[in-house]
Amino acid sequence: MAKVAILGYGTVGSGVADVLDINAAEVKDSAGEAIELKYILDIREFPGDKHEKQIVHDINIILDDPEIDVICETMGGIEPAFSFAKSALEKGKNVCTSNKELVAAHGPELVELAAKNGKSYLFEASVGGGIPLLRTLNDSMRHEKIDSVTGILNGTTNYILTKMDREGVGFATVLKAAQDKGYAEKNPEADVEGYDACRKIAILCSILSGKHADYEEIYTEGISRISIEDFDYAKSLGMAIKLLAMFRKNESGVVSMVAPFLIPYENPLANVNGVFNAINVHGNMLGDVMFYGKGAGKNATASAVVADVIEIVKHGDGHINVNMKAEKAHLAPKDNVVRQFFVRVPENDKNQALEIFGHTVEEIKGTNVHGEFAFLTSDISEKDFEEKLWKLDSVKGYLRLF
Amino acid sequence: MAKVAILGYGTVGSGVADVLDINAAEVKDSAGEAIELKYILDIREFPGDKHEKQIVHDINIILDDPEIDVICETMGGIEPAFSFAKSALEKGKNVCTSNKELVAAHGPELVELAAKNGKSYLFEASVGGGIPLLRTLNDSMRHEKIDSVTGILNGTTNYILTKMDREGVGFATVLKAAQDKGYAEKNPEADVEGYDACRKIAILCSILSGKHADYEEIYTEGISRISIEDFDYAKSLGMAIKLLAMFRKNESGVVSMVAPFLIPYENPLANVNGVFNAINVHGNMLGDVMFYGKGAGKNATASAVVADVIEIVKHGDGHINVNMKAEKAHLAPKDNVVRQFFVRVPENDKNQALEIFGHTVEEIKGTNVHGEFAFLTSDISEKDFEEKLWKLDSVKGYLRLF
Repeated sequence: MAKVAILGYGTVGSGVADVLDINAAEVKDSAGEAIELKYILDIREFPGDKHEKQIVHDINIILDDPEIDVICETMGGIEPAFSFAKSALEKGKNVCTSNKELVAAHGPELVELAAKNGKSYLFEASVGGGIPLLRTLNDSMRHEKIDSVTGILNGTTNYILTKMDREGVGFATVLKAAQDKGYAEKNPEADVEGYDACRKIAILCSILSGKHADYEEIYTEGISRISIEDFDYAKSLGMAIKLLAMFRKNESGVVSMVAPFLIPYENPLANVNGVFNAINVHGNMLGDVMFYGKGAGKNATASAVVADVIEIVKHGDGHINVNMKAEKAHLAPKDNVVRQFFVRVPENDKNQALEIFGHTVEEIKGTNVHGEFAFLTSDISEKDFEEKLWKLDSVKGYLRLF
Repeated sequence: MAKVAILGYGTVGSGVADVLDINAAEVKDSAGEAIELKYILDIREFPGDKHEKQIVHDINIILDDPEIDVICETMGGIEPAFSFAKSALEKGKNVCTSNKELVAAHGPELVELAAKNGKSYLFEASVGGGIPLLRTLNDSMRHEKIDSVTGILNGTTNYILTKMDREGVGFATVLKAAQDKGYAEKNPEADVEGYDACRKIAILCSILSGKHADYEEIYTEGISRISIEDFDYAKSLGMAIKLLAMFRKNESGVVSMVAPFLIPYENPLANVNGVFNAINVHGNMLGDVMFYGKGAGKNATASAVVADVIEIVKHGDGHINVNMKAEKAHLAPKDNVVRQFFVRVPENDKNQALEIFGHTVEEIKGTNVHGEFAFLTSDISEKDFEEKLWKLDSVKGYLRLF
């Protein structure tokens, strides 16, 4: 019988309790022994809750109990989660977490601390929610040379883009509706400006480089400037608009970025709609593999946390190797990445745009947009594009082509 | 240094050698030690091949060499692969395989034999080629109550259906072109009649039931009767036609079948095209998770075999638990499964069809098909549908709705 504690009885934490309760028989079968929830740390009381008796308010009760094997940190945020995770590992507890902010900021040093103490720090639920991605990268695909990862890693922005596309309604209106439904936070910045996707791709960059990728070095654009006119043009092009988080590795190094992209309908990522997430991974022998599922939500995320608990219990004593070191990863700037861009300027600025981008650009007509000149550039580097874009008197919008 | 042998130096076997060569550093990093290819068993000689010196013709050289830890059986077919696998496990070797025929027919007894001998029998590559599905079901998702699996498990048929859909060309012509390109076998029966998909879903049924699902008990229809007219109607319906292999579990038991289905474009499986495979798994807490990738091909399949080798090496001594016992699984007949069907009859038989299926059926118009009456039934059981279908004087085609 393995005994676990949950830190934070919020959405994910209560989901972990539910998975352990509802799937107790399956959890036991998978882990090889029963898993008992002994404590739940929260500052609140939960009178009448089925786990009322397990609620404690002092982390030391958990840290000092030699019966506790695994601690599930489902608090979110940096502090006090960081201090609790460090103390737990130092006291010889295994830790698993859904906390993407903490893993992006301090995951590699917590993995090193876990290794030093012969314990494990796992975080499957921090990227892609319920999608079993990290374990697969760490186990089944670790012998591949992975040169590319492309993900739709934020369900809120994908829901908003899907709604804008299908219903022809503008960003602000869709965001408001998403907030009313609970699909978007009251302060939506972390989602809509791409910061959440950025932290998740940073975690993937760390795993794939074996070092610590700093999310602050990852170029990040959100979706708040995407308009319904952009979707009109996208349809003419036979493409969807998706917020993509990317990792690319070649001879000159690793480049990572987050931005909205035009992506052809033929690409499976273009057909990932609503709150779903998907991640395409390309390995040198395996080719493309894509994973698709709920990137957030109580039960899906909680199921991934429980998968970590089970792996730790099955593994028994000792550290489970995770490919991350605290040493800083070198990320190359995106300057030299070459691709096509889609640009919209006022009709009056057509000649200026042709002068700057060349007469070989391909004009794109929307079906319901007028008074504009929209075009696809030929292949151009990010740096050159930026320089040219600055020369335009007025830009109504631009998007990268996948 | 772990030492392995390959049985069968064909497409997959030579791919395994390539993965071990080309990704040697990554394989070592993943396994924690280098993996050396010591023998390749084949009846042929390979003069000038880079592994010429490792070729042997007598299985006993491999079985009697105490240095060999893992044997990769990439021969295909039942015999002599079955005898070799049994002898290997009895002699204390671990075995991994890409051989779906053998795993479907005898996998569960080989898993039991492996357990008895404290060794492992793994077969990731037998379903979905390079897609890391079985390990995920066995590890990350084993604590889920999985009630549904729906897969596009055969790349050849998916390639043919995609070509028919996109190019409006009939089955026979596309099959011929696929054979010329090497995407379809000269004797295409195993693919186009659904037998290959049937064996793969049988393996999944065995893992998900923990027993041995007999593939001969799984109702199987292929795609050879699908016509370009069917695709015309499918487009009117906003649907694709896909050969789906299914597992469903509810209170009354497990039902499995393979058949072509109409599936709405909104479903991610409808957008899986060409030789790709995809598998959707539904768990009670996790919801839907989909895996997508190359279901066949030398390198992708070989990469999955190597993933098994690495798991065995990392695991060290002892049996890796796989949820399969030789005891026979009970599969319920599909009779009581209720769904809608799409049916085409000659225009002259419209009144007969309405009499048999009722006047509430929904007529479907194709854009280029004439002289027919096509319709969707209301919800009806498989058994009732079959009985009614027999009463029709003439049937031009029918499909199930997903």
